[in-house]
This record gives sequence, structure tokens and C-alpha cells, in this order.
Amino acid sequence: MKLARFSYKGSVPAWGVVDLEHQEINPIKERFEDWAPLVTAGAGISAVSFSSGPLAIKEVTLLPPIEPVNRVVVAGANYLKHLKDDFSLEPPKQPIAFLKAYGALIGADDPIRFPPLTEELDYEVELVVVIGSKEVDTTKPYDSVLGYTVGNDVSARDLQRSGPKGIGMDLFAAKSQDKTTGLGPWIVTRDEFPEGMPALRLTLSVNGEVRQDGNTSEMTWTVAELITFVHERSSFACGDVLFTGSPAGVGMATGRFLNPGDVVEASVEGVGTLRNVVGERSNKRLGK
Amino acid sequence: MKLARFSYKGSVPAWGVVDLEHQEINPIKERFEDWAPLVTAGAGISAVSFSSGPLAIKEVTLLPPIEPVNRVVVAGANYLKHLKDDFSLEPPKQPIAFLKAYGALIGADDPIRFPPLTEELDYEVELVVVIGSKEVDTTKPYDSVLGYTVGNDVSARDLQRSGPKGIGMDLFAAKSQDKTTGLGPWIVTRDEFPEGMPALRLTLSVNGEVRQDGNTSEMTWTVAELITFVHERSSFACGDVLFTGSPAGVGMATGRFLNPGDVVEASVEGVGTLRNVVGERSNKRLGK
Repeated sequence: MKLARFSYKGSVPAWGVVDLEHQEINPIKERFEDWAPLVTAGAGISAVSFSSGPLAIKEVTLLPPIEPVNRVVVAGANYLKHLKDDFSLEPPKQPIAFLKAYGALIGADDPIRFPPLTEELDYEVELVVVIGSKEVDTTKPYDSVLGYTVGNDVSARDLQRSGPKGIGMDLFAAKSQDKTTGLGPWIVTRDEFPEGMPALRLTLSVNGEVRQDGNTSEMTWTVAELITFVHERSSFACGDVLFTGSPAGVGMATGRFLNPGDVVEASVEGVGTLRNVVGERSNKRLGK
Repeated sequence: MKLARFSYKGSVPAWGVVDLEHQEINPIKERFEDWAPLVTAGAGISAVSFSSGPLAIKEVTLLPPIEPVNRVVVAGANYLKHLKDDFSLEPPKQPIAFLKAYGALIGADDPIRFPPLTEELDYEVELVVVIGSKEVDTTKPYDSVLGYTVGNDVSARDLQRSGPKGIGMDLFAAKSQDKTTGLGPWIVTRDEFPEGMPALRLTLSVNGEVRQDGNTSEMTWTVAELITFVHERSSFACGDVLFTGSPAGVGMATGRFLNPGDVVEASVEGVGTLRNVVGERSNKRLGK
């Protein structure tokens, strides 16, 4: 099942079940916090009812599939080649995790805002896990997964390096810039994948040229290990999302960063594609 | 005016105006997002009306004065002596900022949970700024300040050091542990202080022994500069809070960390006091 969050002609955000065959979205009547735990527990489509007839996908705006009250957790340092080739870093002993601002998110078709403070805007395709249970049992981490979506963890590399010596990378400035991080187009529920760790190809292209081409099976730490790592430090709530790191091939390694007008397509096999165009450079700040 | 967020006998959280003379709270009828911008613009008590008669403060539970949809932003490296004495760090060229999980917060009288992964639980009294305007004008940062509250940015130092080499401190593990960070007891509105940068004594004691005794006038970067620094990287929304760094004297410098049963009192002059008792060590995780 594909679950999207959307707005229809400027209405308040709603969730819906996507029907790709008919290019429609069926709006869900119940609240996310009511149906998500049921779907996560395996109830399937019986957990939801519909508030109206289907809407054409092309008529709606796809939003990041996360409620504003939820957290965006990013786990990184999870693909060895990305660390070695792109950052010249040694294999770390454990993952890193940090929080990304909700206001950084954009939907699958939205423009990527070009933040005024950076000259080095970069991309990172990632598998993103959506937590759907009310409680996470760290002995069975996959049981808490509602499904998977696609992330493009757009990063300002010059700001990332601007963190004070002894403290470390400035991941806040690099990765919480307003309206930069693609998330979507929808959540594909866990039951559409084999049990356990997903082995999915993930690719990112800029203007049609493939820049990242990896597989989630290359992760240093599995999805289960990342869920446990984060949850033991700061508990997950139903609806939180977890970025799981990016494979090699980002602009950091080659100096080929994003420019205004670039078309960035980030895909995860069996999940979907984000297609975001980089906006103009501007000194004007966006409100949220 | 003192503005508290509270729960009365298990009811849903509400905001109220605190009347210390009569030890009462007057519950506000309007929604935070409606009255906060008006109070921030100087409307005072005329911006609110009351949904019921006053409640005795001792009858309510004081909650962190922030809505769950808002962000907890922490700016650090802002008191030179703290950096030198406590962390042996050189003066940085700019502040640092990062996000703290909402689930890390506790109210003014709540116990500090002792997280199972740490042996070095530490304290940090801080002045906390509450943003109250819908938009932040970085040419007039103080105009966006609803008021000030007190924070105790409780930190797990051993986890803080556990971040991978080349990436830096693990501030997520150190500072987003469930139910550890005191925030409150209420927001004192900006109009109760002189215009501009506040010069307020801040102290922290453990079992009655003063461990931190500083003044916000010692900050390297002013409140205005911190608001601008953060907002230029990731926009503030009405209701977000900003921790502004802690003065010297934390356990990191002396090895005297927190133990179960310790009574931790964090105060900011003219604002109020958090009084939190450190809980028992436990391997049991809390839900949120």
C-alpha cells in the first residue's frame, strides 16, 4: 500500500491511499495516529476508511509524508565508500544521529530552495524509514516500521565545515536549511518488501546524469541497528522518520555541486522518485 | 506577565497567566498561536481572556512552556570560561546550534530521568529565549522575543564524547535523552526586562551547593546575535525556544556528575527556578 500526505487545492493536509494504476488518491478519514499503528501491525487497508471519492494525483500537491509534530532523525556515516571517497573519513565505530528541522522538508515535486549562505549545495539520496508503532520494541525493530520513503538530504557543505574546532561538523546549518530536503513521494508499507533488512537500489541523477548508484545492502549498520541506536538515545514516536545515510557519489567528492535550474531525481527501488528543481539563489529568507 | 503551560488533574495541556501573589494560574482561552504574537507585539494581558476562574498553582502540573509542534534549538559555545575550563576548547569563531528532541523536556518540578547509557550525567543552567512573533525580522531580533524562561540542558558527557572522529561531538545522544532537560517554570514576558540584551545572574546548585554562578552579560554572542545566527540557517517559528549556552562550573570540569537523588536547582534572576530531582538509574526505557 502507498500512503501519501497531500493538499488538495490549498486545503489542510490529509493522508490518502495512492492508486497508481488509476493515478488517484483516496483520502483517509481517520487520523494518522489512529490508523498508522494498525497498518504497522499488519491490518492493511482495513485500518482506514475514505472521507470522499478518489482525487486525481495530478490535482493534488504531494507533501512530505510526516506530521509537523513528528521528528526528522538522520543517521549518517552508514555507507563506507561515501565516507572514504566523499569525506576522507575512517570507518566510524558507531553511526551518528542528529535531528533535522521539519521546516527543511519539501514534497516530491517542490523546488529545492537555494539557501543564501551556501556556495556548495549538495545532494544525498537515502532510504527513509517511517516509524508507525506507538512503542518501539528494540528486540523486533522491523515490527515498528510502517514503511519506507525516499529522502534527498540536501546539504550545504561549506556550512557543514564551518563548525568550531573540537566540536565538529555544523550539521544544523548544513542540513536544516528551510525547504531543501526532499521527502516522499509516499510511504510504501513494509508488507510490500521481504521481511527484515531491505536490499534496494538507490540512485540520484542531476539533469539526467547518474551521480549516485548504490544499494541499501551496502549499509554498515542495518535499518534494525539504526532504529535501536537512535531509540536507545532518544525515543521514537509514531510518525517519526529516520534517514539512513547516503551512498558514495555526492558533489563533495567531485566539486560538482548543485546549481539553479538543476533537475535532481532521487529514487529508491520499489518506493518511488523525488523530482525537485533547484531554485534561484536569493537573499530573501522564506517564512515557514 | 508570567505565562505557564500546565495540566490540571490530568487534563490536556493549557496555557495560563501566573499570579504569584495569590499563587494562582488563570487559564487562557485563546490558542497559543493567536495570543503569542499579540503579547510579543506588546499587547500585554489584553491579548488574552480566561476560560475559567483561577486555579491554585499547587494544584497544577507545570509543563515545559512550549507546544509539541515547536522546535527546541540549542546554541552553545557561548561562555568563554565554560569552554576553556570545562572542555579545554579555544574560543570558536561562531556559535554552534543544534536541535534537541521535544521528548527530552521536563517541567519545573519533574524528576530528571537517569538515562541507562550514561555514567556522566551533567547539568547546564541556561537563559532560554521564547520566540513569539510569526516572522523574525533579523534587523530587530528582540522584537520577536515573547519572553524568557530557564533551561537546564542536562547532558550525558560520555555519550557526547562518543561521536566519530572527524564528525564531532554526539550532541544528539548527549542532549536529547528522554525526560532530562528542565524547561520552565514559566515564560516571563520581555516587557519585564530592560530593552535589548538581558543582563541576568544565572545559578545552579546541587543539593544546595552552588556549582554554576554566572551572568548572561558574559555571553560571547548576544541574544540578538544568536537569534540571527540560527534564523539565517533554519527559520524560527512562533513558539520555538532557543537555549543560549551555559556558564562555567559544570561537572565536566570537576568530575562531579549527577547522582540519583540529587536535587538540582537552576535559576535565572527575574525569571524563576527549576527544581528537579535526579531519578534512579534504570535499564527501563520510557515511552513518550
